[in-house]
Amino acid sequence: MHVLDLVKPDGRSLTLYARHPITTPDPHRAPSPFATPLGASPHLRWHPLRGEWVTYAAYRQSRTFLPPPEYNPLLVTTDPAHPTELPSGNWDVAVFDNRFPSLGGVSEPPPELIVPTAPGAGACEVVVFTQDANSSLGALPIPHIDLLLQALADRTERLSARVDVQYVLPFENRGAEVGVTLHHPHGQIYAYPIVPPVPARMQEVAAKYFAEKKSGVLQDLIDRELRDRVRILYAGSHAVAFVPVCARYPYEVWVAPVQPVADFTQLSGAQRSDLARALKTVLLKYDGLWQRSFPYLMAWYQSPCDGQPHPESHLHAQFYPPYRTRERLKFLAGTELAAGFFAMDALPEDKARELQQVEVVIE
Amino acid sequence: MHVLDLVKPDGRSLTLYARHPITTPDPHRAPSPFATPLGASPHLRWHPLRGEWVTYAAYRQSRTFLPPPEYNPLLVTTDPAHPTELPSGNWDVAVFDNRFPSLGGVSEPPPELIVPTAPGAGACEVVVFTQDANSSLGALPIPHIDLLLQALADRTERLSARVDVQYVLPFENRGAEVGVTLHHPHGQIYAYPIVPPVPARMQEVAAKYFAEKKSGVLQDLIDRELRDRVRILYAGSHAVAFVPVCARYPYEVWVAPVQPVADFTQLSGAQRSDLARALKTVLLKYDGLWQRSFPYLMAWYQSPCDGQPHPESHLHAQFYPPYRTRERLKFLAGTELAAGFFAMDALPEDKARELQQVEVVIE
Repeated sequence: MHVLDLVKPDGRSLTLYARHPITTPDPHRAPSPFATPLGASPHLRWHPLRGEWVTYAAYRQSRTFLPPPEYNPLLVTTDPAHPTELPSGNWDVAVFDNRFPSLGGVSEPPPELIVPTAPGAGACEVVVFTQDANSSLGALPIPHIDLLLQALADRTERLSARVDVQYVLPFENRGAEVGVTLHHPHGQIYAYPIVPPVPARMQEVAAKYFAEKKSGVLQDLIDRELRDRVRILYAGSHAVAFVPVCARYPYEVWVAPVQPVADFTQLSGAQRSDLARALKTVLLKYDGLWQRSFPYLMAWYQSPCDGQPHPESHLHAQFYPPYRTRERLKFLAGTELAAGFFAMDALPEDKARELQQVEVVIE
Repeated sequence: MHVLDLVKPDGRSLTLYARHPITTPDPHRAPSPFATPLGASPHLRWHPLRGEWVTYAAYRQSRTFLPPPEYNPLLVTTDPAHPTELPSGNWDVAVFDNRFPSLGGVSEPPPELIVPTAPGAGACEVVVFTQDANSSLGALPIPHIDLLLQALADRTERLSARVDVQYVLPFENRGAEVGVTLHHPHGQIYAYPIVPPVPARMQEVAAKYFAEKKSGVLQDLIDRELRDRVRILYAGSHAVAFVPVCARYPYEVWVAPVQPVADFTQLSGAQRSDLARALKTVLLKYDGLWQRSFPYLMAWYQSPCDGQPHPESHLHAQFYPPYRTRERLKFLAGTELAAGFFAMDALPEDKARELQQVEVVIE
């Protein structure tokens, strides 16, 4: 993997990743639609009833929203008088600091309020999957997806090393149905100054299981899913994809290396390559199901980087698609949002069968 | 309060509530669009990674969805040949068993799967706020809202007494934006066989606070909000409404009795009456803000009924509206759904000011 680090005129950083040596117009300086730093200062407030932090970044209301295609800031810059976020050149994947971060870039102390507050430390990065605005993650060749996973490993390594980061979450929101503002194929990385509530809960549950059983809770579930076969979408030599028996969304899918690794940096080349194939299989099945672009949230859970040992960790992706049938969205309402208790209209076995029947050809 | 219990031909129960003695065509038998029992059997599956239960009720996919106004099942029955869910008569509020429950009505054992399963015990009830399909909770007179709160106390008392119920959550989903299928003013009650994840977390946090400080975490926050004054929408002698300093949704509002009570059954008449006024004030401000019906999720948290003492409990409502500005919805995406970490574009102080400026007249 070839890597090139650049700096934007407003101080933000950009990293280019490629399978080939990288050439770009200016090897030191990256373009930016913005000439000066934002001077952002997100802050955290403590939610005393839920026992968790919430971040506030009021300036984000002015951020780019569904711009017409000619203003796509994720296209490469062709006219230096009208710079986008990205330079031209032969790069494959790019990562840069979000101009409107929910976390990071703190320049002011947090306000004093009636609950504890803290600086909104951490980082928010944008991950551009490809230069092609009309492509998608699933349409990319496996070596390109493999490179993306390598880039995520590089981001994880860099962000984990920061003292103000305890958890690194790469994710993709895809589709207007989940609120996406830019349709160019891209994801995001949130690097949190704390371990956020859901990963914290999952680590707690997994650590308890690991202490009792001396094995991983996801590892054991994968073993049982593979033996049960009913909900499997992909079973390779190193990676697996399935509709989990306990799916909370009708078309929920998990993708994981079969053998647990703590985070992206720990993947072997063989694991990463098979994980790329599992991922592409799922994404082609999704888009093939209704012969249209299938919206989802894809989130990658990995080990916290909070200075504690986490032998219970098992890197994996969870996909949450918003549709429950071709025409109907699953709304999160009273029981899901207020109680955290999910009610499913569909059986995972039925949804798995639908996805199993979508034929996928990967050369 | 007058109460009349009826039974539907498919075995479901209906209770009518009114401020006056109730007369209805048949004082023993309630109408139903369905002649025979559904034979529903929701089941729970254990989510081993999150350490929580998920309920599955596959038959719910056939449930009523945005029917045209002439098929409103919450209108009173006028033609016995085409019964709705409700009888005519002089009742004010009605509660009946949901025909398509996510929990309750279990008639079969749960399936054997690769994770623990359990019967989907508990109950799902529909709460009809008024006979008037074109009204809304906020448009009802205070004595009518007061009666609704009494009815919720009655439901809480009855459901809490059941051995298969550990938590009673009344809520309202309002507006197509939050997925509402019937626009007749109504809410729901979920009675869970366990304490669900969010209330369980809130009780755990509140219990720890109570043990340390010998006072309630919400009580202390209300004291500080009242002294701060910045985010207050209503401050009566017994009830308060405010945009919480730690709001996770732009127009989030909490409504509570100032002095803690464990659940609806513990409210004094004076508290209940002022709570009705606080509630109406918030709802009129919501609808007045943009001069249109304001969608929201309203959830009422109260003490678990799990046989344990809960001196930390403090009945209150949390409103989660889906809009962040007049035109834009707040989508829950990667950080909220995958990490449980909320990112806010707006400051609670600014949103509180917007709502404070909406003038409300209650006779």
